[in-house]
Amino acid sequence: MAKRKGSARGRGDKGLSYADAGVDLQSKDAFTESLDSVMRRTFSSRVIPNPGGFAGLFRLDFNEKLFRRNYKDPVLVACADGVGTKVRLAVDLQRYDTVGIDLVAMNINDMIVQGAEPLFFLDYIAVGKVDPHMLGAIVRGVAEGCRRAGCALLGGETAEMAGMYQGRDFDLAGFAVGVVELDRAVRPLRVEVGDVVLGLASDGVHSNGYSLVRKIVAAADLDLSRAHTELGPSAPASRRGRRSRSATGAPTLGDVLLTPTRIYASPIMRLMRGYRVKKVISGMAHITGSGLAGNLCRALNPRVDALVRRSSWSVPPIFRFLQERGGVDDEEMRRVFNMGIGYCVIVKPAFAKAAAQTLARFGERVSVIGEIVKGRGEVREIE
Amino acid sequence: MAKRKGSARGRGDKGLSYADAGVDLQSKDAFTESLDSVMRRTFSSRVIPNPGGFAGLFRLDFNEKLFRRNYKDPVLVACADGVGTKVRLAVDLQRYDTVGIDLVAMNINDMIVQGAEPLFFLDYIAVGKVDPHMLGAIVRGVAEGCRRAGCALLGGETAEMAGMYQGRDFDLAGFAVGVVELDRAVRPLRVEVGDVVLGLASDGVHSNGYSLVRKIVAAADLDLSRAHTELGPSAPASRRGRRSRSATGAPTLGDVLLTPTRIYASPIMRLMRGYRVKKVISGMAHITGSGLAGNLCRALNPRVDALVRRSSWSVPPIFRFLQERGGVDDEEMRRVFNMGIGYCVIVKPAFAKAAAQTLARFGERVSVIGEIVKGRGEVREIE
Repeated sequence: MAKRKGSARGRGDKGLSYADAGVDLQSKDAFTESLDSVMRRTFSSRVIPNPGGFAGLFRLDFNEKLFRRNYKDPVLVACADGVGTKVRLAVDLQRYDTVGIDLVAMNINDMIVQGAEPLFFLDYIAVGKVDPHMLGAIVRGVAEGCRRAGCALLGGETAEMAGMYQGRDFDLAGFAVGVVELDRAVRPLRVEVGDVVLGLASDGVHSNGYSLVRKIVAAADLDLSRAHTELGPSAPASRRGRRSRSATGAPTLGDVLLTPTRIYASPIMRLMRGYRVKKVISGMAHITGSGLAGNLCRALNPRVDALVRRSSWSVPPIFRFLQERGGVDDEEMRRVFNMGIGYCVIVKPAFAKAAAQTLARFGERVSVIGEIVKGRGEVREIE
Repeated sequence: MAKRKGSARGRGDKGLSYADAGVDLQSKDAFTESLDSVMRRTFSSRVIPNPGGFAGLFRLDFNEKLFRRNYKDPVLVACADGVGTKVRLAVDLQRYDTVGIDLVAMNINDMIVQGAEPLFFLDYIAVGKVDPHMLGAIVRGVAEGCRRAGCALLGGETAEMAGMYQGRDFDLAGFAVGVVELDRAVRPLRVEVGDVVLGLASDGVHSNGYSLVRKIVAAADLDLSRAHTELGPSAPASRRGRRSRSATGAPTLGDVLLTPTRIYASPIMRLMRGYRVKKVISGMAHITGSGLAGNLCRALNPRVDALVRRSSWSVPPIFRFLQERGGVDDEEMRRVFNMGIGYCVIVKPAFAKAAAQTLARFGERVSVIGEIVKGRGEVREIE
């Protein structure tokens, strides 16, 4: 493990100093050290201890025999992503323990689309001023996300940017690295006519469209702390986690909007491991910014279309709620939000039922939402 | 190559839309596509094309025989870092082509400390509003940094965070991955009494201490566009790059302060490759936030101290300039700034001269700045 770094250090007592410039190093260093144990809890034996080091060390083939059996031509898969303006909602609600999970989810869900096994994650947190309580909650969220994704939180950077971020504003970026055997990497060429599109339910809005969400909240003067009975079913009890509850037991609007993005790594890895020889999965898509059509098309090749039946899954109530309050049209809703499907798996027809059952057994709500037809790389949605 | 992503997408024409919420997707998508060719120029044949993909693919053992000869037990080395408030100086000067180089430098210099060969890099750029000119310049800087470091720019995220970043403010984070053979990873245990500390000259302030720099500039009411003859020698002509020049030929204060962080990957890799069997390098340190002492100590083990002679290198004029204008004391200067040494290499005494010559041959200005003595893991500075 590398030392968790801070980009601003040093403390002086005469003339101008870093403390004068708004950078308080003592509270930052104390925070930095308290994070070590949080990070360590995500470590497997593949992480090589590197106290005080400048970078994190991750052994590629800890279990050498197993690794060599599974990987003849290993390909590293990497991506970078942030949480977008969902962080501002966290600031408004002063709830910092969930956006770290979102951060891991946005990266890991992108990464597993290529069929990759998650290895490790690093975060970047930028704040105007270090508040150990707030940053501790953020990093605990990141560590919880890594635990759910089965990867190590190998390192991170906390940047204190005096004067750049106002008040409690902060920004989050994350980076994930995984590995896939070249021959097993999921690529668009595999998708064929007749394949079945499985949709995995989202846990609500996830981490896209929050500029619009916040605009609707402001324009319709919505109270984030108000409970709404009709928003209840959007997050089943088993997925609720540690959210605050209103007196009636109904979730508040803030609760629902801050629900963390679902991490699909575990069920997808289990599905892939179940079919080591057969290539049952021909394509996958993480439904992120641009909605279902805008992302599912990235899994297609120019010879096929995906025909998606909108009536084949139920849209969680939060989306109708936002649409009504904001007067947003249908097209725009589908272009900005996931509308209830967070991840798609395109499978060979003979294995569709078994794959859906496997995913359901590992906790997913799965719907057959469409099929692959002859076409030119587009997603066609019908009612 | 993965599609360069944007975290905010979708465009509507009725009711509230993403465009209303301050997110202009058309200009963003155009920008996104223009970046592909910039990224591609950094690619080696180890990068696997993945147009439209959700993540970048990097083949670990493209040249299988060579990889297997060099790597029996490969360890991935990864780190995350930002540029700190140097980005605000770039905004003040409206010069966006250098901070991308800083971003790569801050990460790669941390990574090579472990002896790792750089493989790939990913960036995260957050802006209030996409300005294709500005973002293009930033990404070209990142690509130039990757070229200097010999790594691929495998992916990146451009996040449009309406309402979060004011005016032209932006933030940058980066993430680097490299590989090192476990047995050859540079770890503090190797450092022994008698080893020699080589100091590699910095290209000025690099990317640390800019909160203090900006405070000094504001407090002393300094004009960034004014040329200062006495700042000339801080950046020799060969290192100046494309900086603007004043009429007299002397660099402006802005020029000197925006000089990109030096990337030490190439000379360090060449030095390491020159000694494949002998372990000539016993420790290294990137002189980042906390100054020389604060970083060199991270290369030591508890049985040794580093005795550093301050008179053994010349401090670039920008540091005296800042110190005088800001009335900053000596201790604080050394705690915040690199004071002219950007990277340290601790070598076995028998090879010190040859190592210094090798580094000099590849363009570094090298000084013997100290030696390893019996101690307890501290850096002791003498005049």
